[in-house]
Amino acid sequence: MSPKREIKAEIIAIGDELLYGQIIDTNSHWISQELDLIGVRVVRRTTVGDNRTDILSAFQQAEQRADIILMTGGLGPTNDDLTKPLLAEYFKCGTELVPEALEAVRTFFEKRGRELTLTNQMQAYLPTKCQYVPNEVGTAPGMWFEENGCVWMSMPGVPHEMKKLMTDFVLPKVKSLFELPTIFHRVIRTVGIGESWLADLIKNWEESLPSHIRLAYLPSLGQVRMRLTAFGDDLRTLQNEVDLQIETVKPLIDKYIYGYDQESLEEAIGRLLKQENKKIALAESCSGGYISHLITSIPGSSAYFQGAVVPYHNTFKNQILGVNEKVLEEFGAVSEQTIIEMAENIRTLFQADYGLASSGIAGPGGGWAEKPVGTVWIACAFEGRTVTKKLQLTQDRMLNIQLTGVALLNLFRTCILEKTE
Amino acid sequence: MSPKREIKAEIIAIGDELLYGQIIDTNSHWISQELDLIGVRVVRRTTVGDNRTDILSAFQQAEQRADIILMTGGLGPTNDDLTKPLLAEYFKCGTELVPEALEAVRTFFEKRGRELTLTNQMQAYLPTKCQYVPNEVGTAPGMWFEENGCVWMSMPGVPHEMKKLMTDFVLPKVKSLFELPTIFHRVIRTVGIGESWLADLIKNWEESLPSHIRLAYLPSLGQVRMRLTAFGDDLRTLQNEVDLQIETVKPLIDKYIYGYDQESLEEAIGRLLKQENKKIALAESCSGGYISHLITSIPGSSAYFQGAVVPYHNTFKNQILGVNEKVLEEFGAVSEQTIIEMAENIRTLFQADYGLASSGIAGPGGGWAEKPVGTVWIACAFEGRTVTKKLQLTQDRMLNIQLTGVALLNLFRTCILEKTE
Repeated sequence: MSPKREIKAEIIAIGDELLYGQIIDTNSHWISQELDLIGVRVVRRTTVGDNRTDILSAFQQAEQRADIILMTGGLGPTNDDLTKPLLAEYFKCGTELVPEALEAVRTFFEKRGRELTLTNQMQAYLPTKCQYVPNEVGTAPGMWFEENGCVWMSMPGVPHEMKKLMTDFVLPKVKSLFELPTIFHRVIRTVGIGESWLADLIKNWEESLPSHIRLAYLPSLGQVRMRLTAFGDDLRTLQNEVDLQIETVKPLIDKYIYGYDQESLEEAIGRLLKQENKKIALAESCSGGYISHLITSIPGSSAYFQGAVVPYHNTFKNQILGVNEKVLEEFGAVSEQTIIEMAENIRTLFQADYGLASSGIAGPGGGWAEKPVGTVWIACAFEGRTVTKKLQLTQDRMLNIQLTGVALLNLFRTCILEKTE
Repeated sequence: MSPKREIKAEIIAIGDELLYGQIIDTNSHWISQELDLIGVRVVRRTTVGDNRTDILSAFQQAEQRADIILMTGGLGPTNDDLTKPLLAEYFKCGTELVPEALEAVRTFFEKRGRELTLTNQMQAYLPTKCQYVPNEVGTAPGMWFEENGCVWMSMPGVPHEMKKLMTDFVLPKVKSLFELPTIFHRVIRTVGIGESWLADLIKNWEESLPSHIRLAYLPSLGQVRMRLTAFGDDLRTLQNEVDLQIETVKPLIDKYIYGYDQESLEEAIGRLLKQENKKIALAESCSGGYISHLITSIPGSSAYFQGAVVPYHNTFKNQILGVNEKVLEEFGAVSEQTIIEMAENIRTLFQADYGLASSGIAGPGGGWAEKPVGTVWIACAFEGRTVTKKLQLTQDRMLNIQLTGVALLNLFRTCILEKTE
């Protein structure tokens, strides 16, 4: 552990519209990420409404826990915006006209050819104890306080205004005021194994981690991310320690790791395809275009993605994709025989190196005893071989589509890795 | 206004990964919306890390403010998940094996053909003071407490598991336990017009709304929902009042309204297609399968969705879709001439009544002076006519894909409505 004292922050989002679920608070998430990167520990995030008692109690509780208190919202020119008067009340000071702030608001409206109303002018009145922080992209100024043993910053709730104030003022200011610990994060991204099986596989390794390196499991649909966080003094040392731990754990779970840090599964697959200079095509029945969407959401995917067909009925599986009519009749659309033809034929149709296919019963209707909802076949065809897999998924249509996507991308990943070994 | 006492709720999200900004908390937002709909007032949302002191203090503060305390996260089978032991500690009770819960976990794994590990079995140990609430779509059970004058519910952080527990158990339970005010909501769903233009069109109507009916604008990508909320005593009266207001505003914005309440644009389109007994097919270039995915995410879409082709290169626009080579050469893939052929040919290929097509420069690369990033052509071909539209969208790839989706679905909506008039 670092000998430095941990610097703690609390984020307070203010506004009824957040509590009623009218708008989603992306600000607190963004601020968390930025503080984490500079080694400030966020200990709490609080959302309160436009209510005097609630806001004042949030101030009071925050100052007991945190060194840094960052507030967003409640700064508009209308009556329901309470942050500014309550900050003045809380720090027991009045408000006064800040000529520089008035000039900034005036310029803002002039530039846009709009009239400066009395309500707008009120935005230049600030608590006397605050430092005025110019907001270049909006009308509500930032306010910085150093009171009651904490630093406080009040920012507008409009995301791009808040982000500019954070980047230009708050983050540099915090770095200059506090001696921050050094933190190093690394994320191992896995697919095809559940959280508890993963935990079982690496139990001994996890237990032997030194106390200044923490592990967190972050599961999402069909995937688990493992985040290693190291605390210390020297970034290079931490980085080496974390990398060494990753080298140690890697052999235990190698086949499940598809990437590190921010890389998504579809990005990892794009990277593999580019490395190997191979091209891919998809025949999507039950996944209905979802996997093509995942792949094409990555910039530059046209370098390796040839295209897709979504043949939503047997007629088109036969006419467009050339799946044998007799195979469809005898075995049905959801069968190993059909999925093999789909994968092989899409590969040929799009002149691709790898042909991927999905066919299943997404639900909620369409299932029967032999092939209940959630039965899905996937396949990957490549030079000289076609690998198939049968999945038994859930009762939920959307979940089945998404899980089919993860499973098929992972099947492809396994195939291309085996092929290149 | 209802004379009933206001029922207050607090939402606590638990997990270091939230405070570090590794994952965004969409749960609290969703829960806020659902509680708002049944007339429960959310007074605070709190996010705390995987830390004993912080979690316990959040429990203690919440019970002073709220009647209902809803928690998400910190329920995994691994060591960093603290919610369950801390709830037992807070309510001064032990934990014990709940046979029903063990059976559920066992079945969950059996269905998926996976081995039940000791770690998994631990999930069936619950605080003795809780009511076990089965989680049908995951392994961490829900836990319901009635302690210290509040009701408490602990749910997993995985969104679809939380949503199912909320919908099946928590919301009905809360409605049965508390005397909630009578609230009636109706949402008008619009597409193809921005929030401020919509507000201008209905200004007079909005200003004449009675004080017990509130209007909120809920904008999302390319769409604006207008939510009317009426407060009172008698549901039938409120319902009639709101319906009357809708009848009044409707003529002003009729062509932008595609549906009401929960109906999504893709559901509305499915409804129109079923009503008219028509079938649809798609040729998606820049949207890369996204629109097919939207359409096929709706249960029963196979009744009207024939299929799609994603021809990601000119070769396949020509070979599979039959777009004239010379048209592609002379006008390029992103042109009115090409989009017309794509729409008409996909209609023929899939024997559909309506052929939809998209072609554009999603970005970030691929743009040039004449056709910058964000240039998109869309078309809808039907009997005897093809309607085209050129869009100039943004610099952001994902946004361009999504906005193309909304625009093309809306273009189709306009066409099918005109056709049937």
